[in-house]
Amino acid sequence: MQHLDVAHYKAIIAYDGTSFHGFQKQAEGRTVQGVLEDALTQLGGGERVAVRGAGRTDSGVHATGQVIDFHLGWRKEEAELLRALNAILPEDVALRSLVSIAGDFHPRYDALSRTYVYMVLNSPFRQPLLRHTTHHESRPLDEGAMDEAVGYLLGEHDFASFGRATTPSESTMRTLIAARVWRDGELVRVRLEANGFLYRMVRSIVGSLLSIGRGEQPTNWMADLLAARDRAAAAPVIAPCGLCLVAVRYASRQ
Amino acid sequence: MQHLDVAHYKAIIAYDGTSFHGFQKQAEGRTVQGVLEDALTQLGGGERVAVRGAGRTDSGVHATGQVIDFHLGWRKEEAELLRALNAILPEDVALRSLVSIAGDFHPRYDALSRTYVYMVLNSPFRQPLLRHTTHHESRPLDEGAMDEAVGYLLGEHDFASFGRATTPSESTMRTLIAARVWRDGELVRVRLEANGFLYRMVRSIVGSLLSIGRGEQPTNWMADLLAARDRAAAAPVIAPCGLCLVAVRYASRQ
Repeated sequence: MQHLDVAHYKAIIAYDGTSFHGFQKQAEGRTVQGVLEDALTQLGGGERVAVRGAGRTDSGVHATGQVIDFHLGWRKEEAELLRALNAILPEDVALRSLVSIAGDFHPRYDALSRTYVYMVLNSPFRQPLLRHTTHHESRPLDEGAMDEAVGYLLGEHDFASFGRATTPSESTMRTLIAARVWRDGELVRVRLEANGFLYRMVRSIVGSLLSIGRGEQPTNWMADLLAARDRAAAAPVIAPCGLCLVAVRYASRQ
Repeated sequence: MQHLDVAHYKAIIAYDGTSFHGFQKQAEGRTVQGVLEDALTQLGGGERVAVRGAGRTDSGVHATGQVIDFHLGWRKEEAELLRALNAILPEDVALRSLVSIAGDFHPRYDALSRTYVYMVLNSPFRQPLLRHTTHHESRPLDEGAMDEAVGYLLGEHDFASFGRATTPSESTMRTLIAARVWRDGELVRVRLEANGFLYRMVRSIVGSLLSIGRGEQPTNWMADLLAARDRAAAAPVIAPCGLCLVAVRYASRQ
């Protein structure tokens, strides 16, 4: 059978990462990529479809603005395809938008930046409705100190202290474009936008920010960590469930 | 064994109603009241403890501000009891505060008002992370019209069109103290405070407000419904999962 890619689509998707073993397909376990490919294959009557994503979110990590693309050997009107996919996808994953793409596009390589939000429930007590979407920190956090501390990371740096590259040969240089920590009642949110993130980099940065927020470290500890370029220097990574990929930016034509 | 009630406690609790068959204990099914009584009985070494709640939330309905009370035949320091209970309660229910009560207190009969918030996801597409806490309405809603319409219900009225009393002899007169509908992006929230609510009254009011929000009925349809005093007049009740009991008010001494 000849495979003729007649249509190329880009979509923004959202998922509850709780019951997924991450985005990327694996030998074992239910993944977002696997579920999407199965749905597209089913829609197309059996012809295998490959889905590519902008960010390889870990097991338990959520998304409201993950970007994917896929090629189909058949064509369908955008709104109709979006509706058909959402109708067969399981309830913990959904398409939020879908457009037909003309010209080259790769969701991962063409991304200018990714934005993640990490949500911390800062309360002496648990909040059951937020247990799958927040990390629970019962000691009081100084979100002002955390906001000041994260400012040390802005710009282009070697982030080796906060994560590792996918392959040993890959650079650990990344550019943090925007960073902010703020409080909304019991919720403390950390928002980070970078041209790319090392493996577990957001969770490692937030883990270190929590040490500062609890007053165990001064704000300029963040600058020391960055300068150390040593994975062992930073605080341990924290739970994946507080993390959400909220946006991926591309050049305006994409 | 002699039962001596030596201590009386009031607590504010929160729960994710998704996996509960409502608050009130039943012959079958997991309930919030049952889970709380089991935890207290376990803590007390087997002596049965009775828990009373301010509101009998339905199956699937959540709470962030439900109020309960219970008597114990033993005494424990407040902070210690709170911590001990939260440590053994399942992850979908938690105490948010606990105080020792002197004098009479009944969480249901002494309540001056209950406040519920109903959350509607108003988007053409599903949002997986909100699937257990919102009702999904894909058609555009005019939240201004809904806010105007709910104003017709303010004050003391016979709410027979919007629900039934627990027993046939009970009055269907209730006083709606505050009511507001507002939008925050894709979320439309309905907040209602009343001295009491009839069975399924919030979900019936919100169901009717959605008809108005979609433009199928004028805003003053709400006044017509109220005047009809007929359960058949109003729109059908909508899904429980969008509903949350957020606060119960008492006279300041309690």
